[in-house]
Amino acid sequence: MLKFEEIQNIVNNEIAKLDFKSEPVELYQPISYVLSGNGKRLRSCLALLSCNLFNNDIRNAIKPAIGVEMFHNFTLLHDDIMDKADLRRNKPTVHKKWNENVAILSGDAMLIKAYDLFFELKPEILAKVIEVFNKAALQVCEGQQYDMNFETKIDVTTDEYIKMITLKTAVLLAASLKIGAIIGGATLKDADLLYYYGINLGIAFQLQDDYLDVYGDVKTFGKKIGGDIVSNKKTYLLISAIENAKDENKYKLLNLLYNKHIESQEKIKEVTDIYNDLNIPQVLKEKLHFYHSQAVNNISQVNAKKGDINVFIQLSNNLLIRKK
Amino acid sequence: MLKFEEIQNIVNNEIAKLDFKSEPVELYQPISYVLSGNGKRLRSCLALLSCNLFNNDIRNAIKPAIGVEMFHNFTLLHDDIMDKADLRRNKPTVHKKWNENVAILSGDAMLIKAYDLFFELKPEILAKVIEVFNKAALQVCEGQQYDMNFETKIDVTTDEYIKMITLKTAVLLAASLKIGAIIGGATLKDADLLYYYGINLGIAFQLQDDYLDVYGDVKTFGKKIGGDIVSNKKTYLLISAIENAKDENKYKLLNLLYNKHIESQEKIKEVTDIYNDLNIPQVLKEKLHFYHSQAVNNISQVNAKKGDINVFIQLSNNLLIRKK
Repeated sequence: MLKFEEIQNIVNNEIAKLDFKSEPVELYQPISYVLSGNGKRLRSCLALLSCNLFNNDIRNAIKPAIGVEMFHNFTLLHDDIMDKADLRRNKPTVHKKWNENVAILSGDAMLIKAYDLFFELKPEILAKVIEVFNKAALQVCEGQQYDMNFETKIDVTTDEYIKMITLKTAVLLAASLKIGAIIGGATLKDADLLYYYGINLGIAFQLQDDYLDVYGDVKTFGKKIGGDIVSNKKTYLLISAIENAKDENKYKLLNLLYNKHIESQEKIKEVTDIYNDLNIPQVLKEKLHFYHSQAVNNISQVNAKKGDINVFIQLSNNLLIRKK
Repeated sequence: MLKFEEIQNIVNNEIAKLDFKSEPVELYQPISYVLSGNGKRLRSCLALLSCNLFNNDIRNAIKPAIGVEMFHNFTLLHDDIMDKADLRRNKPTVHKKWNENVAILSGDAMLIKAYDLFFELKPEILAKVIEVFNKAALQVCEGQQYDMNFETKIDVTTDEYIKMITLKTAVLLAASLKIGAIIGGATLKDADLLYYYGINLGIAFQLQDDYLDVYGDVKTFGKKIGGDIVSNKKTYLLISAIENAKDENKYKLLNLLYNKHIESQEKIKEVTDIYNDLNIPQVLKEKLHFYHSQAVNNISQVNAKKGDINVFIQLSNNLLIRKK
């Protein structure tokens, strides 16, 4: 089985080979710009790794793996318009560098281009793969809509939050793994196990993201600590704290959320104190371990070489100790 | 062969059957809203008519035909954001009724949903159909980008304009016809003839649109006359007039375009006078007849019953005498 880094190289080479020099330039340049960012290419890598679990020859899965990556980057492009984000991976977002119309339209073109990358599959496989991809694609839109709804919804529960991140983040990781498995020739049962592994991995991944935003080390995290707190983002930490806080703590927490005059560092400190007081980091870690162990359970049932399965277990372990 | 009205009924019934009651409502309600408008359903009808030309059983083509319609309505939804249009078919546009984020995201979901409607095709057919669809979908994006570029480009030529409307309008009509033909079991040669018929029909259709905006009868046209003139829209009439105008007329025309203080009715009258002076309606009509006769030429070569082919010829004739 190929190493993760080897697969990452294949993906990066393949993305570099994509040609977006077509006219009109306003449509294609932004696509090239978005894809040139230093993403982790996690979805592509998972698809290829999953294919490799069942097949030594992963060539048929390369373009579809890039297709999923293209789709993911399309969602980032449109999400950035909706979230009015100025920066993505330390570069100006497309709607800032060009304008909003260019961002909408080049995003649309990326979504269409994503489908293009599946066409070299044999028809029988193509039909199966596109079905998995399409279901996930629609669910990602649902997740983004829930995420936007949560901005103005006060009583979001942790269950609703898990559902939202499942849709917004986990299903695409899961679909990438399932698509790779299908192309690799896995049985439906094994392909589904990869899918569920991806769902659980994705949820754990997002929970770790939420955790790192507050409890990460600024040196390794690469972003400012506490950004989610400053913007009142409804993360697992905040929702869990609102659910668990009582009396004085609840009053204090809600006050901090609605206080527009408080200085950022003070807000971060005060909210973090409440999180600690309520033992929220522990609550989150338990949830994270639950999903992690589910993921390990799923992948362990796959009918493949033990050493290869361990690569996937290692991947989910790395997630738990990752610092960025 | 089914009559156009019978096919239109099948399409309308099928669209009415689509279920968009899923959650989150902010994502799905706008889709339902957009599709409930009284569109001509031209693309769906062309796909089914084309299928029927080769096959008495058009059932396999119904969902894909709706898929093309879904895609078309997705482009209208996103175009309306980009054009800042307040109304579409006499109803508030989605970004006006809800907001821009809802319009972006529900548009994305529509595009994905469009692909869903192809999945019941047999894998071999699906692969061919999706390839035709995808190529057209990307070209529609290119057309929209050129159209936006033209807003600020002064020296647009009629050739560039024809290229733009080919991409923005004609290729999707052409793809609808080709997809219908493929599903109906046409040979590649016949499917391509349907495609070219669609390209020529689409260009002629758009030229007639440009003509009616200025020379239509307000009673039958259903929209205000001269809207394109007021907004300086680069139609075939305007581009052709700029190309042909000389000296005093050219000076007068450019002055009218840049004069922000002129009253709408006066601007319409003055610009129309210049069009008439330069014989532009005649120039447009000649171009339109050229594309119309090309379309007739294409469809006449198709290996099908003469009576059925006449339905398509009649359709393109109706286009030339349509008043709305």
